[in-house]
Amino acid sequence: MGEIDILFEEKMNEECGVFGVINVSNASEVMYYGLHALQHRGQEGCGIVSTDQKELYSVKGEGLVSEVFNEQNLSQLKGTAAIGHVRYSTAGGGGIENVQPFLFKHRTGDFGLCHNGNLVNSEGLKRDLENNGSIFQSTSDSEVFAHLIKKDRRTNRLEAIKSALNMIEGAFAFLALSKDKLYVMRDKNSLRPLSLGKLNGGYVVSSETCAFEIVGAKFIRDINPGEILIIDQNGEVSSDYYAKKTYQNMCAMEYIYFSRPDSDIEGMNVHKARKETGRILAQEFPVEADIVVGVPDSSTSAAMGYSEESNIPMEMGLIKNKYVGRTFIQPSQKMREKGVKMKLSPVRSLVENKRVVLVDDSIVRGTTSVKIIQLLREAGAKEIHMRIAAPPISAPCFYGVDTSTYEELISASKTVEEVREYINADSLAFISVDGILKATERTKLCVSCFTGKYPTYIYQDINQANKDGKF
Amino acid sequence: MGEIDILFEEKMNEECGVFGVINVSNASEVMYYGLHALQHRGQEGCGIVSTDQKELYSVKGEGLVSEVFNEQNLSQLKGTAAIGHVRYSTAGGGGIENVQPFLFKHRTGDFGLCHNGNLVNSEGLKRDLENNGSIFQSTSDSEVFAHLIKKDRRTNRLEAIKSALNMIEGAFAFLALSKDKLYVMRDKNSLRPLSLGKLNGGYVVSSETCAFEIVGAKFIRDINPGEILIIDQNGEVSSDYYAKKTYQNMCAMEYIYFSRPDSDIEGMNVHKARKETGRILAQEFPVEADIVVGVPDSSTSAAMGYSEESNIPMEMGLIKNKYVGRTFIQPSQKMREKGVKMKLSPVRSLVENKRVVLVDDSIVRGTTSVKIIQLLREAGAKEIHMRIAAPPISAPCFYGVDTSTYEELISASKTVEEVREYINADSLAFISVDGILKATERTKLCVSCFTGKYPTYIYQDINQANKDGKF
Amino acid sequence: MGEIDILFEEKMNEECGVFGVINVSNASEVMYYGLHALQHRGQEGCGIVSTDQKELYSVKGEGLVSEVFNEQNLSQLKGTAAIGHVRYSTAGGGGIENVQPFLFKHRTGDFGLCHNGNLVNSEGLKRDLENNGSIFQSTSDSEVFAHLIKKDRRTNRLEAIKSALNMIEGAFAFLALSKDKLYVMRDKNSLRPLSLGKLNGGYVVSSETCAFEIVGAKFIRDINPGEILIIDQNGEVSSDYYAKKTYQNMCAMEYIYFSRPDSDIEGMNVHKARKETGRILAQEFPVEADIVVGVPDSSTSAAMGYSEESNIPMEMGLIKNKYVGRTFIQPSQKMREKGVKMKLSPVRSLVENKRVVLVDDSIVRGTTSVKIIQLLREAGAKEIHMRIAAPPISAPCFYGVDTSTYEELISASKTVEEVREYINADSLAFISVDGILKATERTKLCVSCFTGKYPTYIYQDINQANKDGKF
Amino acid sequence: MGEIDILFEEKMNEECGVFGVINVSNASEVMYYGLHALQHRGQEGCGIVSTDQKELYSVKGEGLVSEVFNEQNLSQLKGTAAIGHVRYSTAGGGGIENVQPFLFKHRTGDFGLCHNGNLVNSEGLKRDLENNGSIFQSTSDSEVFAHLIKKDRRTNRLEAIKSALNMIEGAFAFLALSKDKLYVMRDKNSLRPLSLGKLNGGYVVSSETCAFEIVGAKFIRDINPGEILIIDQNGEVSSDYYAKKTYQNMCAMEYIYFSRPDSDIEGMNVHKARKETGRILAQEFPVEADIVVGVPDSSTSAAMGYSEESNIPMEMGLIKNKYVGRTFIQPSQKMREKGVKMKLSPVRSLVENKRVVLVDDSIVRGTTSVKIIQLLREAGAKEIHMRIAAPPISAPCFYGVDTSTYEELISASKTVEEVREYINADSLAFISVDGILKATERTKLCVSCFTGKYPTYIYQDINQANKDGKF
Repeated sequence: MGEIDILFEEKMNEECGVFGVINVSNASEVMYYGLHALQHRGQEGCGIVSTDQKELYSVKGEGLVSEVFNEQNLSQLKGTAAIGHVRYSTAGGGGIENVQPFLFKHRTGDFGLCHNGNLVNSEGLKRDLENNGSIFQSTSDSEVFAHLIKKDRRTNRLEAIKSALNMIEGAFAFLALSKDKLYVMRDKNSLRPLSLGKLNGGYVVSSETCAFEIVGAKFIRDINPGEILIIDQNGEVSSDYYAKKTYQNMCAMEYIYFSRPDSDIEGMNVHKARKETGRILAQEFPVEADIVVGVPDSSTSAAMGYSEESNIPMEMGLIKNKYVGRTFIQPSQKMREKGVKMKLSPVRSLVENKRVVLVDDSIVRGTTSVKIIQLLREAGAKEIHMRIAAPPISAPCFYGVDTSTYEELISASKTVEEVREYINADSLAFISVDGILKATERTKLCVSCFTGKYPTYIYQDINQANKDGKF
Repeated sequence: MGEIDILFEEKMNEECGVFGVINVSNASEVMYYGLHALQHRGQEGCGIVSTDQKELYSVKGEGLVSEVFNEQNLSQLKGTAAIGHVRYSTAGGGGIENVQPFLFKHRTGDFGLCHNGNLVNSEGLKRDLENNGSIFQSTSDSEVFAHLIKKDRRTNRLEAIKSALNMIEGAFAFLALSKDKLYVMRDKNSLRPLSLGKLNGGYVVSSETCAFEIVGAKFIRDINPGEILIIDQNGEVSSDYYAKKTYQNMCAMEYIYFSRPDSDIEGMNVHKARKETGRILAQEFPVEADIVVGVPDSSTSAAMGYSEESNIPMEMGLIKNKYVGRTFIQPSQKMREKGVKMKLSPVRSLVENKRVVLVDDSIVRGTTSVKIIQLLREAGAKEIHMRIAAPPISAPCFYGVDTSTYEELISASKTVEEVREYINADSLAFISVDGILKATERTKLCVSCFTGKYPTYIYQDINQANKDGKF
Repeated sequence: MGEIDILFEEKMNEECGVFGVINVSNASEVMYYGLHALQHRGQEGCGIVSTDQKELYSVKGEGLVSEVFNEQNLSQLKGTAAIGHVRYSTAGGGGIENVQPFLFKHRTGDFGLCHNGNLVNSEGLKRDLENNGSIFQSTSDSEVFAHLIKKDRRTNRLEAIKSALNMIEGAFAFLALSKDKLYVMRDKNSLRPLSLGKLNGGYVVSSETCAFEIVGAKFIRDINPGEILIIDQNGEVSSDYYAKKTYQNMCAMEYIYFSRPDSDIEGMNVHKARKETGRILAQEFPVEADIVVGVPDSSTSAAMGYSEESNIPMEMGLIKNKYVGRTFIQPSQKMREKGVKMKLSPVRSLVENKRVVLVDDSIVRGTTSVKIIQLLREAGAKEIHMRIAAPPISAPCFYGVDTSTYEELISASKTVEEVREYINADSLAFISVDGILKATERTKLCVSCFTGKYPTYIYQDINQANKDGKF
Repeated sequence: MGEIDILFEEKMNEECGVFGVINVSNASEVMYYGLHALQHRGQEGCGIVSTDQKELYSVKGEGLVSEVFNEQNLSQLKGTAAIGHVRYSTAGGGGIENVQPFLFKHRTGDFGLCHNGNLVNSEGLKRDLENNGSIFQSTSDSEVFAHLIKKDRRTNRLEAIKSALNMIEGAFAFLALSKDKLYVMRDKNSLRPLSLGKLNGGYVVSSETCAFEIVGAKFIRDINPGEILIIDQNGEVSSDYYAKKTYQNMCAMEYIYFSRPDSDIEGMNVHKARKETGRILAQEFPVEADIVVGVPDSSTSAAMGYSEESNIPMEMGLIKNKYVGRTFIQPSQKMREKGVKMKLSPVRSLVENKRVVLVDDSIVRGTTSVKIIQLLREAGAKEIHMRIAAPPISAPCFYGVDTSTYEELISASKTVEEVREYINADSLAFISVDGILKATERTKLCVSCFTGKYPTYIYQDINQANKDGKF
């Protein structure tokens, strides 16, 4: 659920979450709770654009939902419709100018826009647009999409949108809000989740279904691949498609790591899928051991599954300190080196002289695993058998996850045995790609970060992509 | 671990944690990490008094350890010895004047003082002291204890302290710091935990052993009942006792609820004991069910034990939102009522149509249980069998826990069946007192909140005690 | 100096200040001090864009210079060149998206842009640009200017800039920063001040000369009307002009009210000019009185002049409370009505039974004058003779000052005698337009807010301009 | 008015201001405004104790009045009576434990207590009290006074207070608040100001009369030397005296520097007195010059007087930057050295080639004068004739002003001519002690810091006093 990244500055990070609401009184309040439920998808910044059919209102800022919004600025976000966004903190591209939603002003009608995902051809599109005089103020794909729509001289807005959607390639869930309509758009590969719910007489859309429960909405269905849903302020819904051929390529890491365990993705509960990965790991890679320990919090479900399947008891061998927040200072360099211990404590009396099955959800660079295994060994663990609930991540993601370049992915250059040696485990095993499909009960997922085979065309020159900082 | 209280404003709350360090360079930095590890024992305020053998320095404030301290004020806390304190937020007695440690100034030597626990005869002692001209500036027992010491005209400081200790009755772990010595004192009933560790050439003392791991200290032993440990700035340790008759009456709730799962209390790991309560519950009160769900986070260990013993799989049927902090606003009354849902989400796809064993660590007023069971029922749970890892709490605590008065303790006036009906569970069972002793592998514990039998004399008139706001 | 506006929410407000620096090591630090010296020109927000010839860096935020910037973010603003901006808080158009400088990203070269002033034809230009597909994200004229430059397909950047400058009409001081050059542009009517200084081997430009003193720069000259100054990272300066016909139309209110008394505008010190207005007022409108009182702080200079010329002693009959800041709360409605008294206290022992000459710099709506005169009468003043160091403001400003609409300008609809009656003064006199010219030793100024005669073409339809919120 | 201290960390500083209110609805709101008007007397911390005749309520904190109080905590300060305090930031003795009012809890009745001033015999009294078992938690004289009262076993509270007052020696204005009465006490030498006002049916007391205007109270009279005023919750006032012999020894520096110009001290307006010192300086020490410049803000009045008397025009040759607050950072050491320039700017166009009469209110260490004169010389001043509106400060103050020790007072060891040389002025003159008496129209003042003759007995051993940090 996104926190372990903060802890070890290692794991992959999703770039956002989006939430929309229309035809609901006090839309910005509903939005506030919705964004809060999506907070794990992005902690750098957040924003809301709302409308009362007369004006569009905007508030955004850097920080958590509870830091950016207060009673006063929520009351300024008037109206019965709103879109909102939580943004993940990328290393380089921070800054308030990248916080979404954007509010674009145009003679033909102002509109708010936000998205989750990443376009793979935005650089080229940007170049063309700039050649025609466009100027950009952010590094966001949303701005490219907005320009594409507005460049279209057709008076029919839906046609302009469809034309723009056909020009972009990649993973996206777009929400656009005009004074009278909410547009909900999902890429034809369905790489990022996006679901529709009903709230009183109106509608909500959300990157994850966990936000529906909190606002009291009822899940209706997922947005279809390639679908454009248009919902107006009377609650009228119309559906259209920008692409004829569509695909089921949901990102596997949404199940494994990004999403909240209480969300359902395409009908499958995330916790349940994770627990199943643990079971499958126990079947695929059994080992004699005394206890199963999950790396908190994100690997707890998989550890449960491993324990149940193997009948090896699960123990809280690692404790996460819940008071280590962003404001936590490390007063001196010497103490700073204790960083990991501050955040994760091994429980000596549980692991001492024990053979430990250590379950984690994924390995990116491997540095976290090195530290955790060292902590457990210092606390007296006799053997450490690491089991990973994802296959080896060996290729970068181009669809909105900040996986490192090839160089930084340990599994891109090392065999499983070499990784085991590097992290100093007694044994190491990764679930198979088939195991993931089985655990999620799917026939198709985007598993490109494990296989290097991408569902869309990608950058011709990956090195250039690297240089552009696009992944 | 203290957080569920914030969530539902119901559970019992410990009143503090203490940490001490002596003969260690940069004592205040070690202290900072130590207090941080004890943060779950009190979030209202915290403070440190340090000494460099020339002066005593003090910084304290309201808020979390990471909020009160920063590089600048830690650098003002010079020296090689320090005592520190985290304070729980009581409803009435807040305010900066109650934040500890206190720094008392006296011609015969200034000293810092802090404590964990509660005296049962402080009101009477205070009355006597005031009759002799003492004035008080806080409602803290520490101030009473300080006055008792200083009233003693004897020049031998240790004798004055022993005499004062013999006048007070109740539960306490006291730390006192003069320019050259650290005094560590534990009540003769050993109601509150206090342990000694070694760090390089010096020593640390802590309410819980979890703080040792983080500062790199090695556990030596627990402070004995009735013991006064005096450690000087050269690392010399001497031990004395203020009472001849001492008792083993460790608070059972320290195991069940207050302490961190990675702490060892009197040699027993807390998580291990909790898991064992789950096992015993499963033995004592088996039930046919589909899943076991623990109320996060404090009941996870017990739920694990129940699941393992019963072979009923454990599921994450309730998810806690980790971004609900103290700064979280509830922008409107209407939304405020969604409070519980903000903090705890039922996972519909896991609990729908399931027979659920719901494991919680304790029931105080019962209002939380009502809400959680309602959440689960709304999410489709078919049956809910509640299992509580503590016996019914039927009597107030006088030893530093803010349990409600008799009126507010649901088990003080209702039978188990009546409670079951009130919280709307299909079945309800509490672990037995014997079960707790068995789980903790102890022959003796303070179980007065379950039995009403107290290890010390208490207030003659409990109604008066109520009125005094002493529990 | 801008503060009395905060006090009474009445006075006119300038919309900004700009500062630039190039070929100076640690440009952002110099910038920090420069912006601080210009803080009186805008307190809503501020920002800096810097460059190290490789990248452009940007930090901006809402609040004062000392609130937005800190050691950490200043250190991110690397390089030897920077532009910066302080922004005045307008009622409607707030929000972080309007804080400058803007950082525009474009294939042909990113650039930062900020400005002081207001364009009178931006709405029309915007409409044309939008018709060609441009989208705007702010309500700022800077964005219009940036689009105009980038729409120009010519490869010669200077020609593109000159062409864009010829399309815009109004008052402006523009600073643009690319990776290698600083562009400094002033409108052909020279309505807003902009000066050049030398700092070590590099250059600084500033809205006011008071910022030169603080950064240790030496004043060189004012930027000429219609001039484009291009300074590169080697300190090379080249000058060009976008317009052949240029004019001297410096805003009279810069002398009377906006600028800091220690600034020199076009060679004339502001305090000196203000004091001279007081002298001229004393000559033009003498009166028998006991004391001269200036409204602090902005009218002190004029009051000094009146006192010296009239030989009537000046007294501190009104005291401003310096601790009334933006964070000051007014805990209840009843107390809120005491607002004025909080900020300005009459000194009874000085004004009681006195005939007072009350000197103020200008009257906009008249509501402030009503309150001040009431305060003085309550404190016992026998007669109050108001003398205003500006002529009656009877027409709106289109050049970057938020004067109210005609309806809100008391002198637009009332004669001097009617105003006197409204504010309840015993006599009232305004300096003449000639008096202002004499005091500033100029033959030409923009005095359009006194005369309604504008140096540029303006909106055809002032009501439309009103509606557009352009003044 | 206290700000120049912040600027140059040099000037003398008063230690506090007090305000009281009784028999007025919403006493804490009135208090809030009263303390705000006294903010110049102390910026380190502030507090309020209020009572509704049932309980005493307390809020205090470090920071300005507008920072410590907010709507929420003011609403907790219930009742119709309150006392409040603003505290000056002393170098060593900071910390929340020294912020007043103190709230003392005692069986015979809780009470709040605060004071302005300093006792000269508190160390000895403290020693005696400690020998009898008292413990202190602050370094404040208030705590000593409270212990003296409570040690008294007599049941008559007034007698106990009178007895305690007779034991203390020094300068003080004490306010004490019990549930039903406000006690107002002023030392028999009347060293510190304290005045009584009427507000609706109730009363207010204040260190300075400027606070009356703001809360809408009417000045009645000053508290007499040695007087104890007791006002009850029905508005009944009774007066008594603890001393038979009383004296008029008002601190001269209250007129010269500490108080707000709009306050009247013992019937004399402060601005008027200051202006008069300027006139007298011009008579006593005339000089041929071109302009008079006052050091802002505290010397403006005296400069006005000098200008009027000498007919040399006054100019704003030094401008204070009003945005230099406590939050202002100096991002680098190099820039930090520009500190003075940040705060005070010389106006080159006004002082260049001018003979300047520079008027300041006092010289303590002389370092500020050195810097200001250097600034003016760098800005081109031809001659600088310094005129000081106080006599040379050559002896420490024991009555609540933090003047430096003998070593730090430049006039303690240097003649006027030596000081002139040190500060690099062309001429230097101080007003005479007679001049001060004349300007304030008094026959008697405490002028001990100029003469070394004290109105009370003082420390036997001044070096010891120095060591104790008592002045």
